[in-house]
Amino acid sequence: VVSVGRRPGNVDTRAEIMTAAREVFAEMGYSQATVRGIARRAAVDPALVHHYFTDKARLFVQTMSLPADPYQVKEEASIPNGSTIGERVVERFLAQWEDGGDGPGSASFVAMAQAVTASPAVAKAFREFLAERLRLGDTSDDDPQEWQRRRSLVSSQLIGLGWTRFVMQIEPLASASRVDIASWAGPTVDRYLFGELPGG
Amino acid sequence: VVSVGRRPGNVDTRAEIMTAAREVFAEMGYSQATVRGIARRAAVDPALVHHYFTDKARLFVQTMSLPADPYQVKEEASIPNGSTIGERVVERFLAQWEDGGDGPGSASFVAMAQAVTASPAVAKAFREFLAERLRLGDTSDDDPQEWQRRRSLVSSQLIGLGWTRFVMQIEPLASASRVDIASWAGPTVDRYLFGELPGG
Repeated sequence: VVSVGRRPGNVDTRAEIMTAAREVFAEMGYSQATVRGIARRAAVDPALVHHYFTDKARLFVQTMSLPADPYQVKEEASIPNGSTIGERVVERFLAQWEDGGDGPGSASFVAMAQAVTASPAVAKAFREFLAERLRLGDTSDDDPQEWQRRRSLVSSQLIGLGWTRFVMQIEPLASASRVDIASWAGPTVDRYLFGELPGG
Repeated sequence: VVSVGRRPGNVDTRAEIMTAAREVFAEMGYSQATVRGIARRAAVDPALVHHYFTDKARLFVQTMSLPADPYQVKEEASIPNGSTIGERVVERFLAQWEDGGDGPGSASFVAMAQAVTASPAVAKAFREFLAERLRLGDTSDDDPQEWQRRRSLVSSQLIGLGWTRFVMQIEPLASASRVDIASWAGPTVDRYLFGELPGG
């Protein structure tokens, strides 16, 4: 019998593990989830999970939608033309976390927040992930330290918006439209990315 | 025998319960701490804890240093004259959470983040606390909805800074001086408080 089905390549296996991991993390939370359970859900050997993701903390970080690279956001965001990069970054960040978007849904922001606060290993994995993306970014010509400073400030505003909207659910940020929030906080991100910052 | 000692009034008892609660929350975390254990530490009847604070969630929120009222910050902050209100708010917020300051120390920021993410009751208590402060604020002449919007945006930036500095420990925010961070993020807070915001 000749198999006519698509034979999964590496990319597919990796994606299937990520999908399984998102489900398991959402169902059980970070602490209760196991690599073994995620492998079972994805119908792969646990060794394969370790091969692709090293450990649970790094897998978790990969399954979370992190702030997109601001320089890649231009064409991707779904808000009106004429928006600034900062507005697009804010809109995209919120969309990633919201139900119905491409991302894992706002419940996952709470799961992320729980995991990071409960586990120094996850916080460390996040830092490593961010540092890696920093190096991979199209920023070889820039001052890496300056870029890191700007990026950490952008992260502070985005994470804070997620916290206020999804975890604390403080109004009006809890129920305002993404476009409205982008119009309020977008200029902040623009300044952190491109504006003049003292010292540094 | 006439007692010459100070007889604790309500305020002292309340403060003693808060001190005991801070210790117990720091040692055991929010989930493990109990009203009974806090009362025992403060050497008071548990009913008194409920009398002053209603329940564990509300007690926890009261023990956490929340962002000071921006309008009260002017004289209190310890950064140079000539600073903007926004810079003072940022500096004060960070100082409140840091060891050696007046506040409960950065470990408590992590404890707060854990408690809020782990318990919807704590998140709700935080919201109620913020709403109450909102009403108590010296803002009766202002538009309350507009003030709430500005305040939620300020909260988003402050909470995000706390997260980036204390929980995620992303550099340079993790080890930059408070004054430096205030100079970077202060203008954001100024704009959220006093600047023009679209819509609303």
